[in-house]
Amino acid sequence: MPRFRMTVEYDGTPYVGWQRQANGRAVQQVVEEAIAAFCGEDLRIQCAGRTDAGVHATGQVASVKLAKPWRADRVRDALNAHLTLMEERVAILAAEEVEDGFDARFSAKGRQYLYRMVDRRPPLAIERDRAWHCRKPLDAEAMHHAAQRLVGHHDFTTFRSADCQSDSPMKTLDRLDVSRQGAEIHVTAAARSFLHNQVRSMVGSLRRVGDRSWTADDLASALEARDRARCAALAPPHGLYLTGVTY
Amino acid sequence: MPRFRMTVEYDGTPYVGWQRQANGRAVQQVVEEAIAAFCGEDLRIQCAGRTDAGVHATGQVASVKLAKPWRADRVRDALNAHLTLMEERVAILAAEEVEDGFDARFSAKGRQYLYRMVDRRPPLAIERDRAWHCRKPLDAEAMHHAAQRLVGHHDFTTFRSADCQSDSPMKTLDRLDVSRQGAEIHVTAAARSFLHNQVRSMVGSLRRVGDRSWTADDLASALEARDRARCAALAPPHGLYLTGVTY
Repeated sequence: MPRFRMTVEYDGTPYVGWQRQANGRAVQQVVEEAIAAFCGEDLRIQCAGRTDAGVHATGQVASVKLAKPWRADRVRDALNAHLTLMEERVAILAAEEVEDGFDARFSAKGRQYLYRMVDRRPPLAIERDRAWHCRKPLDAEAMHHAAQRLVGHHDFTTFRSADCQSDSPMKTLDRLDVSRQGAEIHVTAAARSFLHNQVRSMVGSLRRVGDRSWTADDLASALEARDRARCAALAPPHGLYLTGVTY
Repeated sequence: MPRFRMTVEYDGTPYVGWQRQANGRAVQQVVEEAIAAFCGEDLRIQCAGRTDAGVHATGQVASVKLAKPWRADRVRDALNAHLTLMEERVAILAAEEVEDGFDARFSAKGRQYLYRMVDRRPPLAIERDRAWHCRKPLDAEAMHHAAQRLVGHHDFTTFRSADCQSDSPMKTLDRLDVSRQGAEIHVTAAARSFLHNQVRSMVGSLRRVGDRSWTADDLASALEARDRARCAALAPPHGLYLTGVTY
């Protein structure tokens, strides 16, 4: 029973998120259907980060145990052939055989996210489902400076969804960098793990720093308040990308 | 009767191209409907480059003559408000008042295009409608070197659509640069004007140089043959972007 680790890319726009749900098509379901079409096995796969509806991935990781000893590149190519036939917006970037104890979720030691914002007055025609359109100009340097107040081990209750199922609001944020990339602002975040909606909550509040309605001290005091009501409006899902997982 | 020059961005995916056609929605039609919704005038606009179905623009230019002396930024904002309401994938990046003789098409002194290719084995999930997926690795340096053989004043019959309505196949190609940008290959082209399908024809043939099935000499002899049958398969429309027009 060989076990495989797959790196998965997807456009989150047409899906209800990673996880199977009653209200629509999920990325998990699409990959599981491609596996069934390829080798006839009806099984469930694990992922490193269960992304919400509309959230994209360029480096999601999923693990699966197959009955037969397929070659890893054969698994990748066959799944991609089926995903293409199915006209899905999901691709397997890589597949490799891993040791038996490997689990995409529980073996993960770190997750990295990218959040893309475009600050301009006209709406986004091409990047509409790919980045957050912010009409006011954003000061990336001020955002980066303020973001450093969130880095480290903290109670992130302010930046956590009311639906978050984590036992504890304590997390260690390893990195939160903000930089201007041409017409875009990129926020990159890295941690062992994140609370539900943590990145989108932090980006929503950093936007307030960027458009000068909050100072860095306002952001720090929102964190210290440990109060969800102190979080600014959540950044929308379509600017968020799960870019990588480390093991 | 003030005349306006508008810079237009669009995602070409849902449209039949710039020009109004019987078989579906055109970008021209969408902008004209937004103008009608804004000021009640039913009129026709001119553009600098009539892009085909699926081709995108980040810097298309269109001109229009309105009955009333609107402020240019009011025109931009009002059209964008209507385009957003209409849920179109079109945005007006800028509008400015221009002298009476200005015509987006006939006053243009140069057009610039970008063609995006991604050379990797797995299909494209996120950039599927935005770049050409080439499964074989491409040598950008070899492509750039060969591309220089097309620069200059030539008979471009080989790289011209059978439907091209231009009187002459003679054009002066000012620039054709190929470079690797991370996982992508970017081809940028500049000329006073292009023949129909010229950029996609040249990129289709440059791909053959990139995957080493053609040499630079093969490309040059295809040009010299002045024979459409010597052109490689056309690059698909969804990798092409009209990025700018100079006046």
